[in-house]
Amino acid sequence: MNGAEAVVRTLAGCGVTTCFANPGTSEMHTVAALDTVPELRGVLCLFEGVATGAADGFGRLTGRPAAALLHLGPGLANGLANLHNARRARTPLLALVGDHATYHTRFDAPLESDIGALAGSVSGWVRRSARSADAGADAADAVAAALGPPGQVATLILPADVTWTDGGEPAMPRETRPPAPVPAVLIDRGEAALRDAIERGGESVTILLGGTGLTRSALDAASRIAAATGARLMAETFPARQERGAGVPSVPRLAYLVELAAAQLAGTRQLILAGASAPVSFFAYPGKPSTPVPPGCQVHVLAGPGDDVPGALALLAGRVAPDAAPVRQQPGRPDVPDGELTGESAAAVIGALLPEGAIVCDEANTSGLWLPAATAGAPPHDWLSLTGGAIGQGLPVATGAAIACPDRPVLALEADGSAMYTASALWTHARERLDITTVIFSNRSYAILGMELERTGAHAGQTARDLIDLSRPDLDFTALAAGMGVPASRAVTAAEFAVQLTHALAERGPHLIEAALAPRH
Amino acid sequence: MNGAEAVVRTLAGCGVTTCFANPGTSEMHTVAALDTVPELRGVLCLFEGVATGAADGFGRLTGRPAAALLHLGPGLANGLANLHNARRARTPLLALVGDHATYHTRFDAPLESDIGALAGSVSGWVRRSARSADAGADAADAVAAALGPPGQVATLILPADVTWTDGGEPAMPRETRPPAPVPAVLIDRGEAALRDAIERGGESVTILLGGTGLTRSALDAASRIAAATGARLMAETFPARQERGAGVPSVPRLAYLVELAAAQLAGTRQLILAGASAPVSFFAYPGKPSTPVPPGCQVHVLAGPGDDVPGALALLAGRVAPDAAPVRQQPGRPDVPDGELTGESAAAVIGALLPEGAIVCDEANTSGLWLPAATAGAPPHDWLSLTGGAIGQGLPVATGAAIACPDRPVLALEADGSAMYTASALWTHARERLDITTVIFSNRSYAILGMELERTGAHAGQTARDLIDLSRPDLDFTALAAGMGVPASRAVTAAEFAVQLTHALAERGPHLIEAALAPRH
Repeated sequence: MNGAEAVVRTLAGCGVTTCFANPGTSEMHTVAALDTVPELRGVLCLFEGVATGAADGFGRLTGRPAAALLHLGPGLANGLANLHNARRARTPLLALVGDHATYHTRFDAPLESDIGALAGSVSGWVRRSARSADAGADAADAVAAALGPPGQVATLILPADVTWTDGGEPAMPRETRPPAPVPAVLIDRGEAALRDAIERGGESVTILLGGTGLTRSALDAASRIAAATGARLMAETFPARQERGAGVPSVPRLAYLVELAAAQLAGTRQLILAGASAPVSFFAYPGKPSTPVPPGCQVHVLAGPGDDVPGALALLAGRVAPDAAPVRQQPGRPDVPDGELTGESAAAVIGALLPEGAIVCDEANTSGLWLPAATAGAPPHDWLSLTGGAIGQGLPVATGAAIACPDRPVLALEADGSAMYTASALWTHARERLDITTVIFSNRSYAILGMELERTGAHAGQTARDLIDLSRPDLDFTALAAGMGVPASRAVTAAEFAVQLTHALAERGPHLIEAALAPRH
Repeated sequence: MNGAEAVVRTLAGCGVTTCFANPGTSEMHTVAALDTVPELRGVLCLFEGVATGAADGFGRLTGRPAAALLHLGPGLANGLANLHNARRARTPLLALVGDHATYHTRFDAPLESDIGALAGSVSGWVRRSARSADAGADAADAVAAALGPPGQVATLILPADVTWTDGGEPAMPRETRPPAPVPAVLIDRGEAALRDAIERGGESVTILLGGTGLTRSALDAASRIAAATGARLMAETFPARQERGAGVPSVPRLAYLVELAAAQLAGTRQLILAGASAPVSFFAYPGKPSTPVPPGCQVHVLAGPGDDVPGALALLAGRVAPDAAPVRQQPGRPDVPDGELTGESAAAVIGALLPEGAIVCDEANTSGLWLPAATAGAPPHDWLSLTGGAIGQGLPVATGAAIACPDRPVLALEADGSAMYTASALWTHARERLDITTVIFSNRSYAILGMELERTGAHAGQTARDLIDLSRPDLDFTALAAGMGVPASRAVTAAEFAVQLTHALAERGPHLIEAALAPRH
């Protein structure tokens, strides 16, 4: 057995079921090995950023790593932006990067580059397999590293001769570590902060939830705490995955803009982090603070991302809210609106139609402002957001989500500018017949930059405006989708959008709707 | 004046005329500064890989750096693959990477990442501007670094507060260094090798030309040497830019496949490198050598890529071939073929119609096998190839070439698989009304991998075949082009292709032709 087969067999034995691939010559033996291990499904992506984003989506839904098979340094480079998002999402993800044969490196062939430097920038674990006899064990270690907790990107570099040389030995799965229980002293501190909040009778404590703190059981416990103590609950700004909808406690997300986030946190004297990092302004702006945390506010870490966040919240609820019940979101949907199609009316249509069990991949950016409110009372669903700010994530993440959960409808909500980064994901949607409805919010601009230009205080003239404008020519996403085999339509009114979305959700398989938003007044 | 304006004014003063941009919030002040300096043209690209590839194309044609304006680590990551190609092409290129404000870095905001590690993997020069007062001088140093010689990628990281803070001072252009004259001892050695070749009366010497050794004057000198000594001339496998066509000495390129390259070099006892690196197999294969250089062959470096290669060849010609004339390619074109459209007949059509002064951006990969012979006697033109093996280069490089040389027709010859990496370049073709004719060689597969699967000895089954197959669904490039505003047509016979190519070349502005190649028999 060669090294490649040992790797692939080991991965299958470790429960890796899916390999999103954009291979090249140095990966041919690994590709061939997939034929010998039917438990590991290969999914072709036409760009590495689609493969890595898909692996991110898969990992967010399953908690298990998918593999992304990439071609040397440039292939890894093309996949880095979505690995960056996966790193921020703390997704378990296995990057398999083929490399030149060990003895070939010294010849500095055209594709030679510093793979380790690139991998290090996004990975919590990097190893270069040195011999075919080690490759299986390296793969088992890589899976264990990816799982964490918390999840992380583990990169295994596979030189071509390691894959093609005989002597490979599959390795057994490593024992995995469960999330760490939170030390009692941290529960004590959290309790003290909350008792202080009760005494003050106000909202002096905010619990910021993130990671596994946004699963249903954690949300229930947090909601009980809030009910008993008056503490505010907030979700991190860009959760990897938030369970929400009717029957789930509704927790608002901290705003993207630091001044709005500061307003949400105003009056907070003690901030308790449960699976979330301390909040930070997404960007710096002249004269604005780097963090929305009020001056003088104490920040407590109740549970870090690798800890048992739901367990910590349950313990804390047992202490301060033994008799309280969670406040769960009531069902409720907006009416299907009439009139022109705007970010607001499009959100209402989505809220009116969102199916139960949907997985929403949200890269709607500025157009998505109205989505949280419009979908709050929809049937229960998962919401996946752009964790690392590297745009071009939505269509790939939807790909992985749909493969992870073939019986759930996936809704990819995409800004037009972001969609163009990794649009070839649509081809994989078509090839794999994935049940994904893509909505392109077409406002023909990098609208967020129009806002940011003003916020940074930059004085923009026509040249600057042209550089954030997506018109001349307008993009036609229905043509792009057709070119990649995805049935598509364009909606220019709210009613049209509702009809088209109803149809797309009712019919299995991929669809794309270009929501041509009316110009802003 | 803020730091951004100092940078932009300095760049304009240093002769930087073009900035290919995909900006974000941290670049807003730099974008705004472009409005104040009309000498520096901003060109919006919808993906960073388009911006960096375009800057590569611009630099290859002009010998001057264009800027690529990128958004933090993820933006740089998306541009890395084409920066890798630019590094291999030794193109002068300035990467401007916006970053968080200096004081904001410690908050580990979502887009924070190790920009230096990424930049270092492709750049010959990296600097992070520390103060607005330094930014202008940093920009001047960056331009000088990019120019080399040889050209290289210079990356200047611009923290947002450096760009927005007052106190910026434009800097004067640095003195630039001309290519180094080649030491006499190297000319002596070259002469000795060639005199040896004359005595042996055979082809025991091969001169491998690369870089500026593939400009017309260098080719003339090399051709005189060959005529007088019997030395063989070869061009490096993937030249950044080769002048060729009627009236220019015709020099065959070293083959991509190492066994074919070894056959081309068979009998070579002395290999003289003139602007080229020592040849190497693109990949390693089980049982095949890493280099095509015959065992025992001596390798002499006559001139390195940063040296005055044409000058060295002229000196050598003066010594060994004072009276010889160069052998220049005779004009001659294939007839327009009839019948089915294949890689071979498509090449004949291109050879029959290639306009004088054309810039050919060749990423046709396996479909391009017949192009060199078919175009050898076409009117003089430049041939730009995929230098670093990172696919997705052709459409971006064509973008930059067309902006660098607005009066010359640009022909982008693209494999279907490669085109999908950076297809959004077509939108920039449309927006800037660039005179680019894109030909997509559509064979509905990663055909090169079909070949490489066999060559690596991997045993491929259906799963493996599926991972290198681009059908199900077939890509419709005419729809994709239409979606981005580029007029497009599809040719399924050689005659149709000829008619469509004639039309596209006659009408200014961008066009795309999908050359639907007949299935291989």
